[in-house]
Amino acid sequence: MRGKKWLCVTTFAAVTLLSTAALAEMPKYVFFFVGDGMSSAQIQATEAYLTIKNGGKTTEAKDLLKEENRLNMSKLPVQGMQTTYDAHSLMTDSASAGTAFACGIKTMSGVIGMDDTKTISYKSIAQLAEEKGKRIGLISSVSLDHATPASFYASVPSRGDMNTIAKQMAASGYDFFGGGGLAASEADAIKTQMKGGGYTILNDRESILALKKDPKSKVVAINPFLQDAAAMPYAIDRPQTNLSLAEMTEVAIASLVTRKKDGKKGWMAKDEGFFLMVEGGKIDWACHANDAMATIGDTMDFDDAVGVALDFYRAYPSQTLIVVTGDHETGGMTVGHATTGYSAYYDRLLDQTSSFQAFGLNEWKAHYDANKVGYSWTAPNNLESSSEMIGLMKSVFGLEWASLNEYQKEKLEDAYDKSMSGQNDNKTDENKLLYGGYEPIIVTITHILNERASIGWTSYSHTGVPVPVFAIGADAKRFAGFYDNTDIAKQMACSMGIWQQLPVVKTAAVQ
Amino acid sequence: MRGKKWLCVTTFAAVTLLSTAALAEMPKYVFFFVGDGMSSAQIQATEAYLTIKNGGKTTEAKDLLKEENRLNMSKLPVQGMQTTYDAHSLMTDSASAGTAFACGIKTMSGVIGMDDTKTISYKSIAQLAEEKGKRIGLISSVSLDHATPASFYASVPSRGDMNTIAKQMAASGYDFFGGGGLAASEADAIKTQMKGGGYTILNDRESILALKKDPKSKVVAINPFLQDAAAMPYAIDRPQTNLSLAEMTEVAIASLVTRKKDGKKGWMAKDEGFFLMVEGGKIDWACHANDAMATIGDTMDFDDAVGVALDFYRAYPSQTLIVVTGDHETGGMTVGHATTGYSAYYDRLLDQTSSFQAFGLNEWKAHYDANKVGYSWTAPNNLESSSEMIGLMKSVFGLEWASLNEYQKEKLEDAYDKSMSGQNDNKTDENKLLYGGYEPIIVTITHILNERASIGWTSYSHTGVPVPVFAIGADAKRFAGFYDNTDIAKQMACSMGIWQQLPVVKTAAVQ
Repeated sequence: MRGKKWLCVTTFAAVTLLSTAALAEMPKYVFFFVGDGMSSAQIQATEAYLTIKNGGKTTEAKDLLKEENRLNMSKLPVQGMQTTYDAHSLMTDSASAGTAFACGIKTMSGVIGMDDTKTISYKSIAQLAEEKGKRIGLISSVSLDHATPASFYASVPSRGDMNTIAKQMAASGYDFFGGGGLAASEADAIKTQMKGGGYTILNDRESILALKKDPKSKVVAINPFLQDAAAMPYAIDRPQTNLSLAEMTEVAIASLVTRKKDGKKGWMAKDEGFFLMVEGGKIDWACHANDAMATIGDTMDFDDAVGVALDFYRAYPSQTLIVVTGDHETGGMTVGHATTGYSAYYDRLLDQTSSFQAFGLNEWKAHYDANKVGYSWTAPNNLESSSEMIGLMKSVFGLEWASLNEYQKEKLEDAYDKSMSGQNDNKTDENKLLYGGYEPIIVTITHILNERASIGWTSYSHTGVPVPVFAIGADAKRFAGFYDNTDIAKQMACSMGIWQQLPVVKTAAVQ
Repeated sequence: MRGKKWLCVTTFAAVTLLSTAALAEMPKYVFFFVGDGMSSAQIQATEAYLTIKNGGKTTEAKDLLKEENRLNMSKLPVQGMQTTYDAHSLMTDSASAGTAFACGIKTMSGVIGMDDTKTISYKSIAQLAEEKGKRIGLISSVSLDHATPASFYASVPSRGDMNTIAKQMAASGYDFFGGGGLAASEADAIKTQMKGGGYTILNDRESILALKKDPKSKVVAINPFLQDAAAMPYAIDRPQTNLSLAEMTEVAIASLVTRKKDGKKGWMAKDEGFFLMVEGGKIDWACHANDAMATIGDTMDFDDAVGVALDFYRAYPSQTLIVVTGDHETGGMTVGHATTGYSAYYDRLLDQTSSFQAFGLNEWKAHYDANKVGYSWTAPNNLESSSEMIGLMKSVFGLEWASLNEYQKEKLEDAYDKSMSGQNDNKTDENKLLYGGYEPIIVTITHILNERASIGWTSYSHTGVPVPVFAIGADAKRFAGFYDNTDIAKQMACSMGIWQQLPVVKTAAVQ
């Protein structure tokens, strides 16, 4: 129940009374999955897409309900819901939401691991678990110094201060970091510092995958191809040389579970297990850009990583806890749209081959560079006259010009003028609403493609709708009910036997 | 867990083994609340509005989390989530969703109490509970022969066949009907028939409220003022002569609980208790029309009725079960909008004094009738030139012309032209998207007002996002987890000791 008085002490009293039974419930291996920007709409849209992709129909409930068309997360037996607002906004950002999950406190948007006055630093459950002897792993599809992973090791007044964040990462002593790279401007120096501190930094698929057989202590596993701001590419853009989130999760598990804390192989005599956080960080970025197919691709990639944890759970069911949630919704995504009413057309997404980002960096850039000189926005039907651009809309997004209505064509023409020349005949506020900060023609393509698939968007920002929580395993029942995002940190702390009641003040942080 | 194999038989076996303890869990009094069109966004938007209305701020998490600013439903201890798609659509309608709740089967949109071939009729849990000796009450803020209440007594191939539905209502023998009236064209004849069958039909506040002290058997309590299609007015339009959903729930409880089944006062020797379904039906209608304030008003009214059930629960905690959910989301409502980003402005809703519907029937109609002759849509700034209309926007919706940007003004001018003359300079598909089937100027006013308050809409139809479930009381734990809407009927049947496993075929229905 949201906002309830949180009774860890009572739980501890019960543990004392029922020690053997209750302690047996405490998980040794704890997975925490955060789909950044992922709420019910993202999950349902992905399942509807999966239904089509697997040869079923969204007009058949029996197909929608089939096991194979459902995500791992939504099949977990325990389900809850959390409110996401931060100290001073109905719409949290990822820094304050990450801090809620990690430290159990409400703070300001933009602040990591500190209170809303930016004066008191707090320990995260990862740090507390590490002090208790657990090995810690953090994986993110965005950069490792980005807000969500940073919440588990850093305390900084501003998420933008990535150099300080990355230095605190280097000082964390955590066992495994993997996914994207470092976005900090001093990344190279910090990596050198990390090597000096005993970290092995790997940057190619083979040596990262080799950790599964030959795990190392203190690893930073960075994918070779990074797409934007040191983040992994969207899943639909992934080259074969990169690791998926699921593969990275396999590597992390092998690194965290099969060796002693001193780095030697074999099981520890006293093994405290691990805490592994996995973030699907680019679900959020795809939602900011209102690109449903990039959203769905990264939600599937994220859910595949949940599947890896589930395999581990099946091997150690009484010792494993898996918690899956999102930090907030992004984009105001809806499973339906005014233009399609009661019908769904997820088949219209099947032919999109790149994210908005890859298209922007590649095909669009080439087209723009070749055509920008002499472009006149006052000429009529510029887009319709460009067979190359019409062809790209078809080949990259599966969007056929001839299938569009006159209003959709008008919107695309306006956006194309704006992208090619910086001008069109819309009012300034109309352009702001239509394009956010994105490339007008690209965001208009995804808007129209998504609408035609029966998916709507209302925002380029986060929204304030509550987010579901899914859980399985030892002590999973803690995560049933409707509660606040700060309760997740508190419940995970209880599950991990971190006997202090959160929040716990941190006395020294690397500056 | 959604789509799980449903194990009522196993539950029954457990009951046999643990008979006393398990039967003690079975609730005697069962409340089922359905917020039509209500999902997480509607609930969160209402709580954000309540925070402002009660003097708090949406920029303070401590205000948002205060007990007084949260709805009764979201404070219930058990929380679940249900998928809502019907047999042949990702976006269910209320007939198939009602049938899922009532009969435990997936059917086609538009079908009530029958399978998707429209050949087999099913008994509802209300009918099965009635056969077991429970007294049955159905309340709806829309007409009593509308899809959701009808699902609990009728079996018809089409929800549009309201005469047959109303005849089946008359033949149901249920103890209490209340809220709206009958929309059936033969309503008068059917009411006469019901009187002949022993029903008392009441139509004024005093005699309906008198039932609380002097309950009667077989009552139809219809509010005196009905606004549209025999439905109660939106809560924000309610005249003092009408009863709220909460008051109607009090009357229903008094009618169902405090008398013997033969109508005599006093407790029955063998009292099987009751099943009471309460629908907030106009939440859906407000969402179809994209009117956030009408949505919020009816969500609060619905939640007040939940509060009445909670008072009853507090008196009979071990004997009462309350389940609250929605049948689907409507409108693609989002708690955020591109124009407001990370900020919320629910204070901008405080001055709306009428629903879109009341405004349309009253002030707008008068304005239109007085100004339609000679209106020329080609004249510039028609709206800005109409001080009367600008005044109405301010006095009825709190929307100040001077506060709008140029694009918002342009959208209002276009809509006003379309409403006054049937024409404007938009493309046909743009008008369809902007206005749905609604009065252009009115839906544009609510769109812009709602956007300014940080609320978005993407559809005039239902959407396919899962819907939360909240529960409290005896056997409430059945409603934890993520499952399908048909599971709700099955779980309620188990809770009520209806020993057959759903669905149960109905052999004879009134035609």
